[in-house]
Amino acid sequence: MADMVVRNEEFEEVVRASFGRQGLMAHLGAELASVAPGEVRIEVPFRPQLTQQHGMFHGGVTTSIADSACGYSALTLMPAGSEVVSVEFKINLLAPARGERLVARGRVVRAGRTITVCHGDVYAAGPGSEVHCATMVATMMRVEAA
Amino acid sequence: MADMVVRNEEFEEVVRASFGRQGLMAHLGAELASVAPGEVRIEVPFRPQLTQQHGMFHGGVTTSIADSACGYSALTLMPAGSEVVSVEFKINLLAPARGERLVARGRVVRAGRTITVCHGDVYAAGPGSEVHCATMVATMMRVEAA
Amino acid sequence: MADMVVRNEEFEEVVRASFGRQGLMAHLGAELASVAPGEVRIEVPFRPQLTQQHGMFHGGVTTSIADSACGYSALTLMPAGSEVVSVEFKINLLAPARGERLVARGRVVRAGRTITVCHGDVYAAGPGSEVHCATMVATMMRVEAA
Amino acid sequence: MADMVVRNEEFEEVVRASFGRQGLMAHLGAELASVAPGEVRIEVPFRPQLTQQHGMFHGGVTTSIADSACGYSALTLMPAGSEVVSVEFKINLLAPARGERLVARGRVVRAGRTITVCHGDVYAAGPGSEVHCATMVATMMRVEAA
Repeated sequence: MADMVVRNEEFEEVVRASFGRQGLMAHLGAELASVAPGEVRIEVPFRPQLTQQHGMFHGGVTTSIADSACGYSALTLMPAGSEVVSVEFKINLLAPARGERLVARGRVVRAGRTITVCHGDVYAAGPGSEVHCATMVATMMRVEAA
Repeated sequence: MADMVVRNEEFEEVVRASFGRQGLMAHLGAELASVAPGEVRIEVPFRPQLTQQHGMFHGGVTTSIADSACGYSALTLMPAGSEVVSVEFKINLLAPARGERLVARGRVVRAGRTITVCHGDVYAAGPGSEVHCATMVATMMRVEAA
Repeated sequence: MADMVVRNEEFEEVVRASFGRQGLMAHLGAELASVAPGEVRIEVPFRPQLTQQHGMFHGGVTTSIADSACGYSALTLMPAGSEVVSVEFKINLLAPARGERLVARGRVVRAGRTITVCHGDVYAAGPGSEVHCATMVATMMRVEAA
Repeated sequence: MADMVVRNEEFEEVVRASFGRQGLMAHLGAELASVAPGEVRIEVPFRPQLTQQHGMFHGGVTTSIADSACGYSALTLMPAGSEVVSVEFKINLLAPARGERLVARGRVVRAGRTITVCHGDVYAAGPGSEVHCATMVATMMRVEAA
């Protein structure tokens, strides 16, 4: 896409530093798996602390890592000195999130000056299997760093 | 509303038992504040483990408790032997979630036989203040308990 | 709400002029029923041209008037020289839209400098009845008039 | 996908007959461009009756054809005797919808027994250009034909 342009060569450091400051990501045991222009992956291994009432990953975990993956995919394309805030997102839970780990991939659909729209997809992965368990659309906004 | 009818007198026990099995709610430090027909409140006190990169509550926490509050508000109106799953939800983050605790209120907008639609609202509360920080619309589905 | 402030005394003229330029509203037979600060109502009488496959109002009609009602409710609170664009919206269709007319009410939930979040509700009205048939959440953005 | 299975060999006739009964599609001048298993395209040529206040396609038109394209993509995979209703959808308007015609493509992301989740994408097409102007996620429900 014409607008999938990197405006800050240090985008990966920016994303990794911001991710490191998110207390929730550490508390969930989430890891930043990859950072590329317009696309970020976050993974979280299964733990009983992350479950809903039937012992599968809670939709809140699925959503938390998808939100962060979308937000950071948007941030990779913003100029230096930018921060990203989530305006809103919507997620459909497609299948039970059962497996050894969840993998969220966020990617930019359209990067505007103020508003960036992202798609997020979450997969529940086990030995030899991967189930597409959620799909997100998120609206992100660029703000000047304080 | 004509359809805001309790079909299971033990709705509160059903909700409390299910909430108690959600590992994530305990991990976040969330508490079930109230359970009424068609309306449930969940609160979570602030902790650094729940933050985004600027030290405020992460949108994932806001969303997790709003999702559970919506789902359980739907469950209060379902017949005995029902369980509830989130089909999808959408949340707008209206203001920074800064405060001593977050309070999510879920309530049923329309209860159908299979599909129940809920509104969720989240407030960031401090000493003498309360800010409306998020609004959710959620689609919940009734399934027969396994 | 503290932020439900009128910044342009001519808000009603601005809304009525813009509505008058929307070819689609005339094509659907929609009328601007009321314009108040932070709240706008649009109505559309039933016609066979507005139906889905079962002879009820098509979800696209419900959505079109809810989108316009939300957008114009946001515009009532914007300073002179503003225009409003829809960033995104989400709608739940709660009940069949069967009746003599549809009435959409849009109202502002939070008005920010750039982003305004609105709720929309649509009712299907007949003689002596009114059914809540849809609920919308919409994100609107202020842009400078060209 | 394992679940992208045709259960009714007459899926195209079913979709074309239902589309032909939607008064709104005719009123907008929309045409069913293609019907394949799990994917349906609907097009609408530009007319001044379809505009918002700046003379471009109204978001309500974009949404109407995306909703119908998603619903019919879901219907292609349902067993004989099924009808489809929209539970909810969310659309992000990515770019101004300016052009000679709009093309909406709906496709199934996951087909369940009761609930089918679809993605919709809308393009504004002109001579030698095509702009991705909207992206939708929709939740569709199967009901038995009356």
